[in-house]
Amino acid sequence: MTTTVATARYARWDGTGEPFRLVDTALPARPAPGEVLVRVDLATVCGSDLHTTRGHRSSPVPGVLGHEQVGRVVAVGSTPVGGTPVGNTAVGATAAGAAPGGPGPRHIDGAPVLVGDRIVWSVAASCGHCRRCRRGLPQKCTDLLKYGHEPLDEAHPLTGGFATHCVLAPGTATVVVPDAVPDLVAAPASCATATVAAVLDAAVLDAAGRLGPGDRVLVTGAGMLGVTAVAMAARMGAEVVAADPHADRRERALRFGATAAVEVPDAGAFDVALELSGAAPAVRTCLDSLDVGGTAVLAGSVSPGPAVALDPERTVRGLHTIVGVHNYAPRHLAAAVEFLATEHARFPFAELVGGPWPLEDLDAAFAAAGAPGAAPRQAVRP
Amino acid sequence: MTTTVATARYARWDGTGEPFRLVDTALPARPAPGEVLVRVDLATVCGSDLHTTRGHRSSPVPGVLGHEQVGRVVAVGSTPVGGTPVGNTAVGATAAGAAPGGPGPRHIDGAPVLVGDRIVWSVAASCGHCRRCRRGLPQKCTDLLKYGHEPLDEAHPLTGGFATHCVLAPGTATVVVPDAVPDLVAAPASCATATVAAVLDAAVLDAAGRLGPGDRVLVTGAGMLGVTAVAMAARMGAEVVAADPHADRRERALRFGATAAVEVPDAGAFDVALELSGAAPAVRTCLDSLDVGGTAVLAGSVSPGPAVALDPERTVRGLHTIVGVHNYAPRHLAAAVEFLATEHARFPFAELVGGPWPLEDLDAAFAAAGAPGAAPRQAVRP
Repeated sequence: MTTTVATARYARWDGTGEPFRLVDTALPARPAPGEVLVRVDLATVCGSDLHTTRGHRSSPVPGVLGHEQVGRVVAVGSTPVGGTPVGNTAVGATAAGAAPGGPGPRHIDGAPVLVGDRIVWSVAASCGHCRRCRRGLPQKCTDLLKYGHEPLDEAHPLTGGFATHCVLAPGTATVVVPDAVPDLVAAPASCATATVAAVLDAAVLDAAGRLGPGDRVLVTGAGMLGVTAVAMAARMGAEVVAADPHADRRERALRFGATAAVEVPDAGAFDVALELSGAAPAVRTCLDSLDVGGTAVLAGSVSPGPAVALDPERTVRGLHTIVGVHNYAPRHLAAAVEFLATEHARFPFAELVGGPWPLEDLDAAFAAAGAPGAAPRQAVRP
Repeated sequence: MTTTVATARYARWDGTGEPFRLVDTALPARPAPGEVLVRVDLATVCGSDLHTTRGHRSSPVPGVLGHEQVGRVVAVGSTPVGGTPVGNTAVGATAAGAAPGGPGPRHIDGAPVLVGDRIVWSVAASCGHCRRCRRGLPQKCTDLLKYGHEPLDEAHPLTGGFATHCVLAPGTATVVVPDAVPDLVAAPASCATATVAAVLDAAVLDAAGRLGPGDRVLVTGAGMLGVTAVAMAARMGAEVVAADPHADRRERALRFGATAAVEVPDAGAFDVALELSGAAPAVRTCLDSLDVGGTAVLAGSVSPGPAVALDPERTVRGLHTIVGVHNYAPRHLAAAVEFLATEHARFPFAELVGGPWPLEDLDAAFAAAGAPGAAPRQAVRP
């Protein structure tokens, strides 16, 4: 049972070509059990938000976009006595998302979620008990709630980042962000940085284990995800080469720790290739770049594109591994925040984000995000 | 320093279209330090031997073929006092291959190699200290000696299985085979069975770990490697579907533990797909067969063939993993022998091997191996 005492505001998206429309809505004074109510301090426009507004991918209409943001906990719904998790697909559900150890929502590290916590949260909430959740793939839960991607429910509309508030459903992973990390740097953790953490997690080299000194890493695409991958791999001690057709992006990759930045990398010269551009030729470049025993992690290809020719004999004789990464598991969000907290001053993450724009200017923020030569992200401060 | 006291005989291969020629050679009475001299009890004709004699892959001419065999240790070269491993590329080298714990060659399990041991040995000997060996890829050692694939050196010709004896270089993995395992069943361990053990080792399901009950496995190709993979996966508790265009092979797969055997498997229905046929359409079938989070292991494609179309978006959104496996690491040979020792009576492995033929009839054995509808292996008893 929730009671209404205040007002929130969200940006309603009505489809490609339509302007965003600000809508006031009742704010639940007390979240339902297991839920967390957050005030959004800053949100960033992700590349996939642009894909959506341009009609390059299907998304429910109307809806509330935005899934990269940082905010403060305003209220926490406690778990009812004897409550057990029963699902989390509807905001306002009475399910409990309590971690073992006590009632009420908990952060990934097990600490209880408290009013005033400054947090980022996962791009999706998972049920925790379907076959995929049980197999360690909560990001592909068959009953997934995905922030910024749900159809608008006017009774429970606060499911996206382009709003003053967001209601987090049970099964949402949350991580506290140290105050020293600026909003502009923290907001992308929920999508870009955590996805890259998942990419690095997948870049395991058989018996050699995790990336480290002596490993040769290629990163294709020096956008938001690409330079984050460059910085993460560089921090692990690897020798990192960035490949991008644009000179200004190559220049940027060098500021994020790349040893070299090239248009066309050497074939067969890398232990790991990380594909973060989404361009089919770059996928092919990654496959061709692998030395014996090498691993290519593909993460950029999130919209339909041409097929890439795979040479089975080369894959077999080369002991190659090709891995797809999409979204991430909760541990990757924790890794993302740890990375940004430790390294945000070492690499110029703040220069990746333009703005901030007020929520009223969301159309302008999207226009700026889509302009040629734009910063990889535009910030919105609701 | 070796002294000559007896005679061995090997089958010399002089190229495509030429008959095998038996050649007598001096037998080293005492192997050089770190070497092991083995009497070959039985060897089998592998599919790659056929590829070689048919000219489908390049191989040194002249040479001594054969790399699937079982034999008894006749003599062991001890390690000289103070000797340290310095390399193993040449048969007769003075390098020492001693494992920690004492002088002289040792089996994978650390036990010393003794005269009279009944053993199988790895398809290759590795140096142990190149970059690839250090990275856990001894099967891709940059200084690899590969049995049955070396150019003939008349001073040291005993490098293949189609001979009365074989000289094992330092860096060769050896495993003792229990007497209860028939020669016909044991010989393929060195190539087919160990490769399949490597394939199963690569079929790891992210957080779910190794294959087990509840996992759905597809095996394409129900030849020697395919049915071995079916049996290994079935033993791990997985539900295994075999796919093969030939009805008699599908029937055979059922005898090796397949739950079902089909011509065309369902797309998107498998957690793991194991490609052991080498046919490009089967590679495509494996990729298409994967459910979200699925892993395809490719091992059959060891000769040139057409490219296969890879859909990057499907790989990314499906969190798919595609892994190439070629040859194997020493632990896989140990796993192969353990598997055969435990399961050889449960599955009809002996029916996979025709013969045995005497070494004098090696041409006939190869003809039988290449005949339509032939058993997957023909045995040769030198």
